Amino acid sequence: MADDSVERRGPARPYRKGVERRRQILDRAIELFAEHGVDGASMRSVGDAIGVSHAALRHYFTSREELLIEVYREHEQRLLVEDEDTGAVEDIARSADRNREVPGLVQLYATLTADALQEQRAATREFVNARFRRVREDLVRRIERSQAAGTTPADIDASDAASLIVAASDGLQVQWLLDPGTVDVRRSLELLERFLPSGS
Amino acid sequence: MADDSVERRGPARPYRKGVERRRQILDRAIELFAEHGVDGASMRSVGDAIGVSHAALRHYFTSREELLIEVYREHEQRLLVEDEDTGAVEDIARSADRNREVPGLVQLYATLTADALQEQRAATREFVNARFRRVREDLVRRIERSQAAGTTPADIDASDAASLIVAASDGLQVQWLLDPGTVDVRRSLELLERFLPSGS
Repeated sequence: MADDSVERRGPARPYRKGVERRRQILDRAIELFAEHGVDGASMRSVGDAIGVSHAALRHYFTSREELLIEVYREHEQRLLVEDEDTGAVEDIARSADRNREVPGLVQLYATLTADALQEQRAATREFVNARFRRVREDLVRRIERSQAAGTTPADIDASDAASLIVAASDGLQVQWLLDPGTVDVRRSLELLERFLPSGS
Repeated sequence: MADDSVERRGPARPYRKGVERRRQILDRAIELFAEHGVDGASMRSVGDAIGVSHAALRHYFTSREELLIEVYREHEQRLLVEDEDTGAVEDIARSADRNREVPGLVQLYATLTADALQEQRAATREFVNARFRRVREDLVRRIERSQAAGTTPADIDASDAASLIVAASDGLQVQWLLDPGTVDVRRSLELLERFLPSGS
């Protein structure tokens, strides 16, 4: 959304060209990561794989860390479905459904999350932390709405429940990547509907 | 457990000495990781920090990957509390309580889990996958026992519920590391007791 508004502000031609070029690079990088994950992805190997010179890639993304963050941010913005009426669990389950098609990006997300815990990865930590806060806040609103409608018990702390739903979805997707025959993300998530029903 | 039985087999003195030395190294490495996590931990920096020569460290652990796995495996074995009567959610919540004291090892676990998704990390994948399977199987037994006792609804699939509990605990600990003021692992986990009550 931020990117769009920047573009609409009507920049001069060279600037617009830069924005388009950056977007093209992200397009190809998203495809690359979706298919191959972040296995041994260096700036140079990504540049080679998507047919962009190392210098050009460096012009748009100053580091591998920035590239990984921006690929994931852009991917998630494209998948964003604004559906305020969906219940909290169903909302997250639908995200997870969409992720099933792009296992490499689920792997990228797991990598970003683990990297966020490392001292020297300040930019990743900031991105992951802001994302967690935003996702939890969105779920809190959904839970509170369903509490107001009387479908979710009023004594459930919406903030605790929001953290739980995000955690369950993140953790299940990792287990699913490792053992897709055993772990079914949606079925497990739907167990949460026993006390956090979808719809309002 | 595997280590103990190897030792009890009554090895010759030089072998026993090796086992003891290896254990001393793990002792110190666990302390080091518990305090500092895996931030920039190379074989050399770990050797320096715990006062073991690079050559000696290499003698016991052929790679950084093996060292990280063995540190986590040993840590977890030491924390192991055999309490067959505890309900599934409470069992995992107690593990998470113990982990609160050793944030660096929670970070190590998150790193191992993300590494397990990378093609070139076969040993980590094998360790993490085997661990997930073992933890889920243990939870399935606890859930089935509580279903037999009539405290957990019989229509809940124990395997789906086990994956959910592990996922929730893993994901919540990551969120807690990033935002300890907002996320309370135990409170969120206890919401699962609404349909998976502890005790039997």
